[in-house]
Amino acid sequence: MDKVVSLCKRRGFVFQSSEIYGGLSSTWDYGPLGVALKNNIAAFWWREMTQLHENIVGLDAAILMHPRVWEASGHVAGFVDPLVDCKQCKARFKAQDLVKTWRNKKKLEALGGGDIPEGGEGHLEELKKIRWPEALCPTCGTTGSLTEPRLFNLMLKTFLGPVEEAAATVYMRPETAQGIYVNYLNVVNTSRVKVPFGIAQIGKAFRNEITPGNFIFRTREFEQMEMQFFVKPGEDTKWLEYWRDARFNYYLSLGIKRDKLRLHRHTQEELAHYAADAYDIEYEFPFGWQELEGIHNRTDFDLKRHTEYSGKDLNFFDEETKERFTPYIVETSAGLNRTLLVTLLDAYDEDVQEGEPRTVLRLSPAIAPIKVGIFSLVKKDNLPETADRIAEDLRKICPVFTDHQGSIGRRYRRMDEIGTPWGITVDYQTLQDQTVTLRDRDSLEQIRVSVDLLGDEIRRRLAR
Amino acid sequence: MDKVVSLCKRRGFVFQSSEIYGGLSSTWDYGPLGVALKNNIAAFWWREMTQLHENIVGLDAAILMHPRVWEASGHVAGFVDPLVDCKQCKARFKAQDLVKTWRNKKKLEALGGGDIPEGGEGHLEELKKIRWPEALCPTCGTTGSLTEPRLFNLMLKTFLGPVEEAAATVYMRPETAQGIYVNYLNVVNTSRVKVPFGIAQIGKAFRNEITPGNFIFRTREFEQMEMQFFVKPGEDTKWLEYWRDARFNYYLSLGIKRDKLRLHRHTQEELAHYAADAYDIEYEFPFGWQELEGIHNRTDFDLKRHTEYSGKDLNFFDEETKERFTPYIVETSAGLNRTLLVTLLDAYDEDVQEGEPRTVLRLSPAIAPIKVGIFSLVKKDNLPETADRIAEDLRKICPVFTDHQGSIGRRYRRMDEIGTPWGITVDYQTLQDQTVTLRDRDSLEQIRVSVDLLGDEIRRRLAR
Repeated sequence: MDKVVSLCKRRGFVFQSSEIYGGLSSTWDYGPLGVALKNNIAAFWWREMTQLHENIVGLDAAILMHPRVWEASGHVAGFVDPLVDCKQCKARFKAQDLVKTWRNKKKLEALGGGDIPEGGEGHLEELKKIRWPEALCPTCGTTGSLTEPRLFNLMLKTFLGPVEEAAATVYMRPETAQGIYVNYLNVVNTSRVKVPFGIAQIGKAFRNEITPGNFIFRTREFEQMEMQFFVKPGEDTKWLEYWRDARFNYYLSLGIKRDKLRLHRHTQEELAHYAADAYDIEYEFPFGWQELEGIHNRTDFDLKRHTEYSGKDLNFFDEETKERFTPYIVETSAGLNRTLLVTLLDAYDEDVQEGEPRTVLRLSPAIAPIKVGIFSLVKKDNLPETADRIAEDLRKICPVFTDHQGSIGRRYRRMDEIGTPWGITVDYQTLQDQTVTLRDRDSLEQIRVSVDLLGDEIRRRLAR
Repeated sequence: MDKVVSLCKRRGFVFQSSEIYGGLSSTWDYGPLGVALKNNIAAFWWREMTQLHENIVGLDAAILMHPRVWEASGHVAGFVDPLVDCKQCKARFKAQDLVKTWRNKKKLEALGGGDIPEGGEGHLEELKKIRWPEALCPTCGTTGSLTEPRLFNLMLKTFLGPVEEAAATVYMRPETAQGIYVNYLNVVNTSRVKVPFGIAQIGKAFRNEITPGNFIFRTREFEQMEMQFFVKPGEDTKWLEYWRDARFNYYLSLGIKRDKLRLHRHTQEELAHYAADAYDIEYEFPFGWQELEGIHNRTDFDLKRHTEYSGKDLNFFDEETKERFTPYIVETSAGLNRTLLVTLLDAYDEDVQEGEPRTVLRLSPAIAPIKVGIFSLVKKDNLPETADRIAEDLRKICPVFTDHQGSIGRRYRRMDEIGTPWGITVDYQTLQDQTVTLRDRDSLEQIRVSVDLLGDEIRRRLAR
């Protein structure tokens, strides 16, 4: 992990936000290579989830939405985390984290705690049964210093309208999914979609996380890639299994190692209040197995809630069977920043080449920030100019980078370290027969290719 | 304008945000065709501004930034709009708008108003010299009902950290440019860039606009496409002219009509406080000539301010000339939503085909949401299945749409209306000789193409 974080900073993948001002806590900016990688992952997902499916369309809803949306979704009432403070040492805990520790140590019952659900209405009720004044602060060890749990909403709020006293309180969306649900009717009415169909969206969401961390794994500002698939009730289980498998295979096609991925089916206790069944696709991060994507059977919970709160009928009329029903929703929800972290961790490798240690990112060519490094063997005799001319042509096909400084081995290694799949070198033979060497980052194979055919060769390799 | 707004709603380009809840004022969601068009414009800009330039790199900074950034940039102190209220009819005005009206009607001097600068330190001072109690409300006609001008900051604020009383006030960035300036040092240190070089970014920004409107032209949440070009002092004028021309030509390459575009050079009064010179690229909207993109010579204002506020040296050392200097910045700043509106307005056309009125969006193929409509002449005899097989192949190349319902003329018109450049029809001849008709949206020319060669033909046309 440290090596990847260091590489990210050193080579311009990820910078701390506002770093010259000391940074903003767990907020990150994407540098030249990072934004290229992120855009490529987003485009890969978008193509996979919209272009390749006749029955999935895209959407891009605004970050600011009507406040009623978050009442209907349950976020105003339920998107809260009970926090406990230590009056002695000022440490702050999620009540749920303390409960987990105490349960593991079999201390929970002694404090009066029972069977506490993960969330939902009964969560705080059950937490309040614990005799907090008798508990011990795990940080400073004081007994009787912990406060009762207090609720904190995880949504970030702002005020819309120029005069603060009269401004409307609105929220920065804590998830992108609701933008899809409230546009369901608009999409059905304008896009000729028929159940089963999907709506896909990539966008930012914001959460006032109490414990952000692990680099870009959990941040207050993050990007989601979600597809909500609307199905006929009764077909939800079939489609949940379909998307569970399709999404698992997607990560393999992205080049992620199979043995680092696993499926985790939610237990009854883990299920969110809106879900009838759910799977997580987990990745083995250096800090343990963690969720990379969630696939949920959300039933008709969301559309029913929005029907109730908006008064608009959000059902679907099937022209062929003449049936009218509220669709069930199967959700696939992935994190873009998290996926980027996984592609870096998974691609990171070290080996020894020609007696020299080498760091190499074995990124899939589809998502590599730069596709081709273009070098002149020496910085004279018209070799750099020839390389630059080749670069000008290839630049129209894909992102390339030219480098004429230092030893050729060092230049290859600089490109390997950022995951560039191919290197082209212009040498003295080029001036004679108009061929260049084309080197592969992983096999290290070098072949000679005619300059005329380079564009086709790169196109062919990119399409593989 | 009304026709384009209506088309946007009818065909799923743009929806009102949270419409089922009555909408959120001047906030818009992009439907299936809208998000495709927007993504295509963004990708076109990104390729043009980064991939095709060896010396321009990308960046994606977070929306949330350190609050000191907005002190350095001048937004905390200066990004304010003095407002005036009418106590009688409750109308609200930008003081500046009233001043303009009064100046035109030569009433300003009678009220004590003098030479009022557009912004900056002296702006409010000068406004206060006006004898507001003597003025007339332009809405209700009452004299003496206008309040003194009051300042309102246009930045949207929020609170970071779980406990509100202890939370830090941060702002949702009102512009993307500062994210580039505060990352200047990181980019220079990691990316081997040398002056002159550029940093490009596409991202959202938020302003608590007092008068949003004109559909997606001016909204509180919007997307900017900016490139900040760092140059040697003294070369700034040359580069301002270079980018002025390059950016003007960019709009032509996007297919915008030349006679709808013009350059406007800022007068001394119009120049922002950070600018030494500036041009607007304006488009003739149905509501008048308005700014589409600004190209500014921002001098060393921004880097000097951030040096002052952060204490970090933001200068550049030229290895070749051994000179150290603070670069000047030439900024090109375009609105993505505004560009999308322009592409729709500019492409909108009506004609008559075969005696039937036709609405057609003459969008450039590069940005058209769907590239190919694929139809079966009749819905029987294996024609739809043949068309679907062709669609499955072409889908890997570009977004396609199949339609087997209704008359072929009507299906063509549905595709013309959303700007699809080409239509493929499978008919009985296809079953015999494996050719289809390929129809061009603009020339209406129809040619027969072998199914085997369709992929190459579409690729070739897209690359034009």
